[in-house]
Amino acid sequence: MVNGLDEVEKAKLMAAKYAFRLILPSHRIIGIGTGSTVEKFIQLLSEKRELFHDRVFVASSIDTALKLREHGFNVLSTTTIDKIDIYIDGADEVDPEMNMIKGGGAAHVLEKILAYNAGTRIFIVDYTKLVSRLGEKHPVPVEVLPEALLFVHRKIMELGLRADIRRSRGGKYGVVISDTGGAIIDVHLDKPVNAAELEKALCGTPGVIGTGFFIGLADKIIVGHPDHVKIFEKP
Amino acid sequence: MVNGLDEVEKAKLMAAKYAFRLILPSHRIIGIGTGSTVEKFIQLLSEKRELFHDRVFVASSIDTALKLREHGFNVLSTTTIDKIDIYIDGADEVDPEMNMIKGGGAAHVLEKILAYNAGTRIFIVDYTKLVSRLGEKHPVPVEVLPEALLFVHRKIMELGLRADIRRSRGGKYGVVISDTGGAIIDVHLDKPVNAAELEKALCGTPGVIGTGFFIGLADKIIVGHPDHVKIFEKP
Repeated sequence: MVNGLDEVEKAKLMAAKYAFRLILPSHRIIGIGTGSTVEKFIQLLSEKRELFHDRVFVASSIDTALKLREHGFNVLSTTTIDKIDIYIDGADEVDPEMNMIKGGGAAHVLEKILAYNAGTRIFIVDYTKLVSRLGEKHPVPVEVLPEALLFVHRKIMELGLRADIRRSRGGKYGVVISDTGGAIIDVHLDKPVNAAELEKALCGTPGVIGTGFFIGLADKIIVGHPDHVKIFEKP
Repeated sequence: MVNGLDEVEKAKLMAAKYAFRLILPSHRIIGIGTGSTVEKFIQLLSEKRELFHDRVFVASSIDTALKLREHGFNVLSTTTIDKIDIYIDGADEVDPEMNMIKGGGAAHVLEKILAYNAGTRIFIVDYTKLVSRLGEKHPVPVEVLPEALLFVHRKIMELGLRADIRRSRGGKYGVVISDTGGAIIDVHLDKPVNAAELEKALCGTPGVIGTGFFIGLADKIIVGHPDHVKIFEKP
């Protein structure tokens, strides 16, 4: 088990290192995702801080913003920008078509906003994140206005899907509230679904802020293994 | 001008009175919209408070919640319900197909959540709200996460539409923030658009919380005139 974890850590670092080399001098505004693989990427950035003194960063979460700031990087307010040059993030699940589920850390709404508005989108994952179909290992999180929590929950169940309201496992009592102010409904995909259609149905449901489906949002996915990487690239 | 205003006030009251008679004893959970015509409806409710001692209300805004409470009505937390029996609201524009624009008061996101989840949806407007096409007199408001303000603004302009970030006209400095925490981008429809398609495109844009298009959400629209009402009914 300890060995197993070490292998995954090595795999994450392999992916982060590969992605680091994809940052070009022309990438002036760099968007950074959230999570344990991204943390390794931020560590690599900090070790070469001198290369980035004239760049600015945009963070997909308060956590990432604070980590970047700790390392001395300038973090822009996302409210003040309309485009970013490159975006680097992790993912919870990656399917063979390069579609993903994100949001285990409840940061997927801002992550998707950044990915959607980035010139280049790079995702870094370890090999355990590969699935044959979305929903195999993780539910898809749906962020909703707290005012719409039970309305949307009922609508999701009417689609024939199991869904749980996400609760905090410590530090806050009860329902998780994300950095963007929403509550999270975790939708279990017990059977294969058409993710693009489910995404459309969910986005059309009043009260939904955003889902954890990332469909067509990756230009490159770097899959780390303990001693090599595999690259998925948009055709 | 004073006469003109009086006529409109009379027309609003006519619509509110007609709608009042549509509340049945079986309507246990009653959703109430926001705005000047709805205020007249709340006034009518308060005059017959004894009829509603065993009903509960759900408000589409803090303003409406406080007004209902002032009159002694019980106002449920929207977070705790998954369905309402009847919903009464106003609108800014009504087209011949019973589609509407709402959100001049920045309450459209919660209004749409309530309308979408109501058994019966009644809208009350005065005759000045009738338009031959949506967007004739009012922009359509798009509520967005403040973090996504300029990203979404740029995307809307890329659709070839003029769009302004709504600013407070007093009481708060700068950008309007709604009861549901979003900023508002007012999108001007200088030319006729396919509202359903624009709605889909906007809802699919990460960072959008909800638009002011109300398409297919009215069961009945009561159009008040100074001395009569006209009824639009879903076929």
